[in-house]
Amino acid sequence: MKNNLNSSSVKMKKPTTYCVRVAYDGSHFSGWAKQIGLRTVEGEINKILRAIFQVEIAINGASRTDSGVHGYDQVFTFALPFWMEPNNLKVILEQHFTRDIKIKNVTVVANKYDIRKHVRYKEYRYYINTGAHNPFKINYQLQYCKKISLKKLRKALKLFTGRNYFYNFSGLAKGDAKNPYRRIDKIRVWQRKGQLTIVVKAKGFVRYQIRYIIGAALDYSQDKVTLDEIKQYLSAKEKEKYPYPKASASGLYLYKIVLN
Amino acid sequence: MKNNLNSSSVKMKKPTTYCVRVAYDGSHFSGWAKQIGLRTVEGEINKILRAIFQVEIAINGASRTDSGVHGYDQVFTFALPFWMEPNNLKVILEQHFTRDIKIKNVTVVANKYDIRKHVRYKEYRYYINTGAHNPFKINYQLQYCKKISLKKLRKALKLFTGRNYFYNFSGLAKGDAKNPYRRIDKIRVWQRKGQLTIVVKAKGFVRYQIRYIIGAALDYSQDKVTLDEIKQYLSAKEKEKYPYPKASASGLYLYKIVLN
Repeated sequence: MKNNLNSSSVKMKKPTTYCVRVAYDGSHFSGWAKQIGLRTVEGEINKILRAIFQVEIAINGASRTDSGVHGYDQVFTFALPFWMEPNNLKVILEQHFTRDIKIKNVTVVANKYDIRKHVRYKEYRYYINTGAHNPFKINYQLQYCKKISLKKLRKALKLFTGRNYFYNFSGLAKGDAKNPYRRIDKIRVWQRKGQLTIVVKAKGFVRYQIRYIIGAALDYSQDKVTLDEIKQYLSAKEKEKYPYPKASASGLYLYKIVLN
Repeated sequence: MKNNLNSSSVKMKKPTTYCVRVAYDGSHFSGWAKQIGLRTVEGEINKILRAIFQVEIAINGASRTDSGVHGYDQVFTFALPFWMEPNNLKVILEQHFTRDIKIKNVTVVANKYDIRKHVRYKEYRYYINTGAHNPFKINYQLQYCKKISLKKLRKALKLFTGRNYFYNFSGLAKGDAKNPYRRIDKIRVWQRKGQLTIVVKAKGFVRYQIRYIIGAALDYSQDKVTLDEIKQYLSAKEKEKYPYPKASASGLYLYKIVLN
């Protein structure tokens, strides 16, 4: 990789925080968060920033994604010890990110900007193929390949909207300090050309929450569980975790992050 | 995997040859041909047939594909020592091929049917993204991401149609016994929504031939070579090989095989 920094793009010795929007194909990464020995999105961004600026640069993502989950609109910040035009920075980043991470947008934010505090809401989308098995899409849609009653799916998903106790539908472990309550603002479902789309909006989620919700809704659509059972798992704080598997990561996209 | 063979689907002890059409995502395989220690399409099919029938079953493909090249319509034959309904066989195969290889069709052919001799023509398609870089399609289109003159592309591709000496545009090595002459019946090009499609039809190809042809046509479109230079490489039998890289495997699809 060439180092494209030159004196014209670096204007002043003034620390600046940049906010970068990216898209990435999650099937090429072991999730967002840095992990030794694994190719992760954060790790890859770190590696490329190090190649460009010749120093270690920490980044703060607005969200994490699990292994196999796609980022259609992820956003992160990082600080540089100098100021440069965000558009120049964008050009430099674009020259280095040429494969499975796409630089969508670069802006300047206030120094010490804490991106997680500025998230107004996140929108996730989940794609389900209800048509014939598509061997080219196993990383991009859940290959469900049978009809699903939209009416039943909507009934089950409705149970999860609003503020709920999501411990039993999450990857949280006993004794985990993380708050298991979350408020889901909206869930929408539609079908087009053999692909079902589920949209879930909330300010924040706990680990695996969306995949457990979608798994449970699909289970209800196939009469594997009743609405009452789902309700019990959602309310009973001492109860066992939801007993069926969460939906696969391959259909899930972090679709949009709206910041304040 | 469950073994779904039962007495109702196996009718008679009569050797039968089956012809199976499949599609596969080439980005998940190290090509078609069996190779020790690598996941290949042929190897995967062998493994699954062994799991179903509990014996080693050799298969004959109508074509090979390189690592990363997709099979949208590949076809192979194999013999079983008994007869069963092709539709029953299809159901059994479908139950075992549930990921990146899709069973499209199963028919019965004459015993000792040599599929390579029955190929009337093969159609390959090559997809090029001339729009913005798409991180979700790096395995499915060439991410060219700049405008290409269709007129120039057509001019260069026209040079390759008809019967030509393709050694200099192939992966053949010196002293290779393989005939370097091939007849290309047709090359067509069109563009739709930022995606360029190149269709190449011939009875057979030598290794890397299509990728070299497309590489050279793109080189001409960018004024890296002249039509005369391409012509020289196509005619001069003692000349060096075409000096620029072949086009990436990621955009290439074995799109159709028409049998006699």
